Amino acid sequence: MQLLEDHIRREGKVAAGNVLRVDGFLNHQIDVVLLTKLAEEFHARFSGEKVDKILTIEASGIGMACVAAQYFHCPVVFAKKSKTRNLSGEFYTTQVASFTHGIVNHVIVAKPYLNPEDRVLIIDDFLANGAALEGLIDLVQQAGATVVGAGIAVEKAFQPGGERIRAKGVRVESLARVKEMHEGEIVFC
Amino acid sequence: MQLLEDHIRREGKVAAGNVLRVDGFLNHQIDVVLLTKLAEEFHARFSGEKVDKILTIEASGIGMACVAAQYFHCPVVFAKKSKTRNLSGEFYTTQVASFTHGIVNHVIVAKPYLNPEDRVLIIDDFLANGAALEGLIDLVQQAGATVVGAGIAVEKAFQPGGERIRAKGVRVESLARVKEMHEGEIVFC
Repeated sequence: MQLLEDHIRREGKVAAGNVLRVDGFLNHQIDVVLLTKLAEEFHARFSGEKVDKILTIEASGIGMACVAAQYFHCPVVFAKKSKTRNLSGEFYTTQVASFTHGIVNHVIVAKPYLNPEDRVLIIDDFLANGAALEGLIDLVQQAGATVVGAGIAVEKAFQPGGERIRAKGVRVESLARVKEMHEGEIVFC
Repeated sequence: MQLLEDHIRREGKVAAGNVLRVDGFLNHQIDVVLLTKLAEEFHARFSGEKVDKILTIEASGIGMACVAAQYFHCPVVFAKKSKTRNLSGEFYTTQVASFTHGIVNHVIVAKPYLNPEDRVLIIDDFLANGAALEGLIDLVQQAGATVVGAGIAVEKAFQPGGERIRAKGVRVESLARVKEMHEGEIVFC
């Protein structure tokens, strides 16, 4: 998606450890006009699909998920990062290793908010090694619900997550796919 | 606001430790149609004010802030909870004690995203003891920016935060003000 690629080229910053910073418009300060355009594009790409629920993970996916939900006319559920390992049976739980922070998060969704009849679209800001997306897919599957697909703003296509998850048959739509990046240069697929 | 009070009466749950759970529509699963109505109401209440930026805190304020920003035509900044005490000079930092979790969070905003000329509306889902809101006000003031006011979904008016912050001259608009609550009964002001 040209508009998002332009934003990333203009304002994105390549930081140490293969980190792409988009803090100025996507995940610290949020350009809500841009979010609306991204949501329109997700809606266009998944227009043939019935979507009952959008699932994302706190924190930076929430804004995009809420704006997308205005187009899909469905609620949002955001998975929470929990410090507690031992939760009662009220939650679906999974583990997600954070690429950026080098830690493992326990990620949970309360059982009433994912149901077997739900057709779930997963929305997130980044896809790199795929840990967060695989965790969210796991939560949907634990509930016996259906993953319609994943709508991602920025995919770092030189990392293995996208390829691995598509190979499992999950439809992944990324609005900007970074082929390679170095300080001062970001190349898209 | 009648609509929000009705939601809280119907779906809110009073839990141990004076916790009001609104997980089903506000801060785990999110009813985006409701969010749109809350955003309209914030916009109506602050309609006389120039707002350049909406500030909230991760995670549960982000969705409401993004939908509100569609009405105010401004970006959102969300303050982040940081595990790191010692940050370089790139951030405004403050401390926020969490009522629900019994811990102190270091809360940060990168300096480029709050500027002296900004007129900032703070949006959050809850106001109880006021720690989060006071932390956000502190961040705005560190930047030399102006607090236009605070738009809160649910104020627990029997806790002291709202009164204390209003007494400092900050305009606080809460869409539902809980006067008292017990298991099975929630009374609004």
